[in-house]
Amino acid sequence: MKPGRLILMPNTLDFGVDDSLDLREVLPQRVIEQAARLGHWAAENAKTTRALLKRVDAVSPLAQPLQALQIAELPRPPKGGKPAADDSPAWRALLAPALAGHDVGLMSEAGLPAVADPGARLVALAHEAGIEVVPLSGPSSLLLALAASGLNGQSFAFVGYLPVDAAARGARIRELEQLSAKAQQTQLLIETPYRNEAMRQALVGALKATTRLSISVGLTLPGGWTRTATVADWKRRADALPDRIPAVFALLA
Amino acid sequence: MKPGRLILMPNTLDFGVDDSLDLREVLPQRVIEQAARLGHWAAENAKTTRALLKRVDAVSPLAQPLQALQIAELPRPPKGGKPAADDSPAWRALLAPALAGHDVGLMSEAGLPAVADPGARLVALAHEAGIEVVPLSGPSSLLLALAASGLNGQSFAFVGYLPVDAAARGARIRELEQLSAKAQQTQLLIETPYRNEAMRQALVGALKATTRLSISVGLTLPGGWTRTATVADWKRRADALPDRIPAVFALLA
Repeated sequence: MKPGRLILMPNTLDFGVDDSLDLREVLPQRVIEQAARLGHWAAENAKTTRALLKRVDAVSPLAQPLQALQIAELPRPPKGGKPAADDSPAWRALLAPALAGHDVGLMSEAGLPAVADPGARLVALAHEAGIEVVPLSGPSSLLLALAASGLNGQSFAFVGYLPVDAAARGARIRELEQLSAKAQQTQLLIETPYRNEAMRQALVGALKATTRLSISVGLTLPGGWTRTATVADWKRRADALPDRIPAVFALLA
Repeated sequence: MKPGRLILMPNTLDFGVDDSLDLREVLPQRVIEQAARLGHWAAENAKTTRALLKRVDAVSPLAQPLQALQIAELPRPPKGGKPAADDSPAWRALLAPALAGHDVGLMSEAGLPAVADPGARLVALAHEAGIEVVPLSGPSSLLLALAASGLNGQSFAFVGYLPVDAAARGARIRELEQLSAKAQQTQLLIETPYRNEAMRQALVGALKATTRLSISVGLTLPGGWTRTATVADWKRRADALPDRIPAVFALLA
């Protein structure tokens, strides 16, 4: 039997902010239609996957009722502990429908699956199992922030989250600034929204005055914005970043 | 007067391959409609921008005839020479319609503008001039390749093109492999399509047998594919990469 495919389904960027926005602002029509056809899902979070599929249904009716869809969550590491010595069987089980001939969609809580989220493991297992992987076009807050920053788009890196401890965070910021200066490489990072303003202050406090810092808030959302300026300029601005809307930070030294 | 905005308009990924594909596979409906409304454009290439706008017109009729649109190309460095000492006036001229109150679209030949192309300079000047920058959702071959690779999506870098000289290229590949091993950072790179196969051979020749290499060819195009395997596995495959279709290479040591 021909195996099904692993379809990487983009999500919107309005997670936790406003789910009443028009899906057609950020997802291509044919991608929405493909989501409507899938009967099997692997999800970072089943609840948010169902929420997106309800919005899909309003644009392109689902082939099966929402209740009939198989939505399985990605394994999570046990709380406070290490992952099981080998949790591969739990991951591989998510690919069983594909091995039985069905396409399986992979969806994360926001943006492209397997970018800045745990889904990459499933994609790697799909390659090992000879399952075709098909990425569908959709929004990535990281790349939208990079494009809107005006910083170097020919060389850039995404480094994820920084340490929470103030001293370690400051050291990491200065390390990223040195990396950026050496390779003229834009460094992109993210933070949980309620720490957005603390991150801005840490960056402005640790970076050199001439380093350029770009902050994007609420990309693709109404009222979203991107601002790029030198750290010296940012220091003159007292207005705090919002604490419930996702932000992306980019710097170029 | 309120200035217009700089709208970052994504292009398809089928540049030079097949422009008969359905725009709605990769671009959101509302993004296509916004493209149809813009009267002023800054373009990496005016011809390919007009070609895309013809396809836009077929989905969402243009507000003005194609001939009436103002499409200005980004300044190019003089052939074989350095850029002029200060070519900022030529760049700033592209923003004149925005300063006069009109929205200006920025479009590159493929994917998101200002990512892996010269448009970032215009975005930076827009920020300096206080012009709002609005990035619209669309496909990025780099991020689609990353998502489909199954390699680390929590830490990654795009390093552009490698040196053409064989010795310098080999040294750069080994340097990227060390960087990748040290930071567990996926390294993404691109090549002009006619050198795709030469790049594959250079990577397979220079990387360690256990390093994982992912190659994506023709993303979002019919027949496009992504394959991720160890370098040892790639060595056993003799089939050459196509020489007219864009590819993205990713490695994780």
